[in-house]
Amino acid sequence: MTGERLAYVALGALVEPGSRELGRLVRAAGPEVALERVCGGGASDTLTGTVSARLAASGVVPAGDPLRGDSARIADRIAEPLLERAEELKAHIATPADADWPRRVDDLARISRERGDRLDRDTDPPLCLWLRGPVPLDRALERSVAVVGARAATAYGEHVTAELAHGLAERGWSVVSGGAYGIDAMAHRAALAGGGVTVAVLACGVDRPYPEGNANLLDRIGEEGVLMTEWPPGAAPHRLRFLTRNRLIAAATLGTVMVEAAARSGARQTLGRARALGRRALVVPGPVTSALSVGCHAELRREGNRLVSTVDEIVEEVGRIGDLAPEATGPRRPYDDLDPLAAQLLDAVPPRRARTAEEIAAEAGMSGRDARRVLPLLVQLGRVDVVAGGYRLSRTAPRR
Amino acid sequence: MTGERLAYVALGALVEPGSRELGRLVRAAGPEVALERVCGGGASDTLTGTVSARLAASGVVPAGDPLRGDSARIADRIAEPLLERAEELKAHIATPADADWPRRVDDLARISRERGDRLDRDTDPPLCLWLRGPVPLDRALERSVAVVGARAATAYGEHVTAELAHGLAERGWSVVSGGAYGIDAMAHRAALAGGGVTVAVLACGVDRPYPEGNANLLDRIGEEGVLMTEWPPGAAPHRLRFLTRNRLIAAATLGTVMVEAAARSGARQTLGRARALGRRALVVPGPVTSALSVGCHAELRREGNRLVSTVDEIVEEVGRIGDLAPEATGPRRPYDDLDPLAAQLLDAVPPRRARTAEEIAAEAGMSGRDARRVLPLLVQLGRVDVVAGGYRLSRTAPRR
Repeated sequence: MTGERLAYVALGALVEPGSRELGRLVRAAGPEVALERVCGGGASDTLTGTVSARLAASGVVPAGDPLRGDSARIADRIAEPLLERAEELKAHIATPADADWPRRVDDLARISRERGDRLDRDTDPPLCLWLRGPVPLDRALERSVAVVGARAATAYGEHVTAELAHGLAERGWSVVSGGAYGIDAMAHRAALAGGGVTVAVLACGVDRPYPEGNANLLDRIGEEGVLMTEWPPGAAPHRLRFLTRNRLIAAATLGTVMVEAAARSGARQTLGRARALGRRALVVPGPVTSALSVGCHAELRREGNRLVSTVDEIVEEVGRIGDLAPEATGPRRPYDDLDPLAAQLLDAVPPRRARTAEEIAAEAGMSGRDARRVLPLLVQLGRVDVVAGGYRLSRTAPRR
Repeated sequence: MTGERLAYVALGALVEPGSRELGRLVRAAGPEVALERVCGGGASDTLTGTVSARLAASGVVPAGDPLRGDSARIADRIAEPLLERAEELKAHIATPADADWPRRVDDLARISRERGDRLDRDTDPPLCLWLRGPVPLDRALERSVAVVGARAATAYGEHVTAELAHGLAERGWSVVSGGAYGIDAMAHRAALAGGGVTVAVLACGVDRPYPEGNANLLDRIGEEGVLMTEWPPGAAPHRLRFLTRNRLIAAATLGTVMVEAAARSGARQTLGRARALGRRALVVPGPVTSALSVGCHAELRREGNRLVSTVDEIVEEVGRIGDLAPEATGPRRPYDDLDPLAAQLLDAVPPRRARTAEEIAAEAGMSGRDARRVLPLLVQLGRVDVVAGGYRLSRTAPRR
């Protein structure tokens, strides 16, 4: 493994993902120099202190020791056991130095720069991805949609998720989600059932099935799709890591579909990141009587989100030209073929007792001349019968 | 009654409502001269022919007779029996010459001019309104919202309609609808139940309860609210008259709320008119699995419509400043009061076996110094306990 890749792996393990300062350092000087700086000085106290705490805990450098120079050795010492563990797990690694790195995620650098507030300090792109599964990462993400939502999903939410994820899979779209209970799990399952690729983006090590109740599902994804995470093997699923993880779901895909979300929901954050990144931010509505749709409807009341209700509509939003969804239409009706004047006249033709053209004109509110001109056309179309005394509706014609 | 009012009544009876040509004539020369023109020449053949057919049918002027000059006599002859009938029905009349004319409906002249296509020829403002009910029209419409939707409504649609119309009534908003089955009927009923004013806008004479199954409801509205129509007594509810009527529902109110609508639905037309008039066009979503919400979702995918799910949101849209709806929020959670650094640290504090500040810092991904600074604050907040060997989560603190 090259020094560059080793440095990425070490940095990914020594610093919590998303660090803006580290991202800047890496972009300016490359990962090896960045590692030297965060270990040996030249980075902020906060970043150096963070790295120092991790190094001390890992036993690579005794606590309190000033860190000097030899970042190559540190990279080796930090990365080596992780790489061994990865081999045991049959996991592999992607870094920005690799050809299959999903370039799309680097868009995160843009929103990380634009948003200076503290809560957003975690939005820089990942530096290392740990992966399990047979599908190449670039192929898995090329045409991908995130489907996310509530853990405490309703039967409605799960049903709709199954329909959408299955349909996306059938059309060759990968379904990306977070591996959680509820909407996430259903999205993964339905994508697999649809014969498609599914990607679970975790907030912990690839060796820690979380939540435990989804262990079988996550195993299956690791065997048929992709398990993907920024955290090295062994890392625990801290609460805030889910928020950090969410930016990656938004960035790795062409659009995010939110199916159910309570007023407060991590899914809304994923959707917001998608919007900030210029990805499609798509929302499935639900009954206004459902607490699990409150977050969806709140999002649909803001600018920048789009309502979707079918697979066609999702594909139209995230797809390329040629993927236009058909307009929602109903069955054709008997009046559809008539021009407005004929329709207005037909309205006034009596169903039983015949009336003259003049009487029908008065009832319809048009001139006798127009009525005399249009009535024969309605007769020709089989809508109106000529009988003694004038005109009446045909007994065989379709009614309103 | 003045000649001006009589002329309005006669014009309203002789020409189907919405005629752009007649509207132009009336605005240019007043109703009396307009009546002279449409009866005696100076209007188009179409308009003159229309009036001629109605006059012939009414027996005022023999068929084929050229109509000359004496429009005052014609106005009398046309209006007189209608006014007598109105008195029998205890109906009254409003015309643009009256102080209580709802000026808002005259906005229709603007969209009638802007849209030249044939289907929109019927969008000119009304010239005469027939009314029943104890509530003065201007008061009934001043703060009013239209609530419209499918006739074949679902239980969900009726439930939501009842909630919204009842709530609007309770806050002093009038509920305007079309008197049809389904959403319309429920909107009227719930507004009455909420102690509010409701207005049914009909597509036929005020003496023709339509649909018959709503006869009791329409009677009650005529006794407690307002029945309102552009058509004179005796007029039948032709199919196209509902489309003409819809523009009045949109124009008379400050906003239109569409609750349920199939892909093809007259309610969508009302909503479109509201949008064209610059009124609030509001849509209640529903399950994407329901055919009766397909029209709602299609509308929510276009520009200019807004999703609403609560009475608060409707009032915010149609109301004045100060009527802002509260943001959808959930219950506060244990992490809400913590700043991001403290929350990140708390994530890494073990629940059982205590760990040192340095170990916790490494787990959290921050410097030992930050951990040592923030841990005492978490202790002070009762979130973390100090025990032999370091820190662990407080047994009494709220959990995630």
